[in-house]
Amino acid sequence: MNKKLFSAGLALALGAGCALSAQAQVKPEILVKQRQSVMVLQGKYFGPLAGMAQNKIPYNKDQVMLYAAYLDALSRMPWDGFDPSTKDEKNTRALPAVYADPGKFKEAAERLQASVRNLVTVSHTGDEAAVKGAIGDLGKACGNCHDNFRQKQ
Amino acid sequence: MNKKLFSAGLALALGAGCALSAQAQVKPEILVKQRQSVMVLQGKYFGPLAGMAQNKIPYNKDQVMLYAAYLDALSRMPWDGFDPSTKDEKNTRALPAVYADPGKFKEAAERLQASVRNLVTVSHTGDEAAVKGAIGDLGKACGNCHDNFRQKQ
Repeated sequence: MNKKLFSAGLALALGAGCALSAQAQVKPEILVKQRQSVMVLQGKYFGPLAGMAQNKIPYNKDQVMLYAAYLDALSRMPWDGFDPSTKDEKNTRALPAVYADPGKFKEAAERLQASVRNLVTVSHTGDEAAVKGAIGDLGKACGNCHDNFRQKQ
Repeated sequence: MNKKLFSAGLALALGAGCALSAQAQVKPEILVKQRQSVMVLQGKYFGPLAGMAQNKIPYNKDQVMLYAAYLDALSRMPWDGFDPSTKDEKNTRALPAVYADPGKFKEAAERLQASVRNLVTVSHTGDEAAVKGAIGDLGKACGNCHDNFRQKQ
């Protein structure tokens, strides 16, 4: 019952419209904190998947399916936080390129989301090699955006 | 297509098992950061809903549906972060009661999740009064946990 509601809720909500944003009035430092929170949680759920792909921890089909589903939700959340009002914020590693080249940034965001969706699909097959390949592709999509739009530490 | 995948992914992942956790090896300070990140994002999506319930911003059915769906995913994420290993961490407002009375904490967590699921259901009806009531109930579930398990600022 709960599972069905969860699923139905997301399907209908997404059907209703994905481009909604109520972020216009939010302070820049809050926007930064919110988008960084998404990154933290993407890390939480991607980390174990990367460990499996690298054979550092045992492959667990159920865990891959669940974490891929979480990542599917999370990977939709950060983008409205990269508002031009945040470009002078200090506590962020986002590079000026995010705002200077929004088309390329959007492309990188879409690549990430496509990679997550692919992992969601592949995770249901239980084909371990294919799943590990999809995790690797997702890792590359993370890296692609970080390489171009995040300051090196 | 993407919408269907999103939905199917969550349904199947949840069917596979919800109690998975790979958090055992994670450092306490990271666990705290991860669970706080969930709270930040719950705030991001609950804030506008509360504004609608209080007639401070216009009611928007599509936005309620989407944000309720996000909250449904998010409200499943923080709990494994309240690991006993984190009870001596400094940068957290979680009270000792979280670890001293885990049964009551679990009950508060389940009340939150039930309130979110109810909002997901009600959000699809488009019944503005019922939706605002469900948002109010969710706010009380947030407050119930904060009152008992979070240090006052």
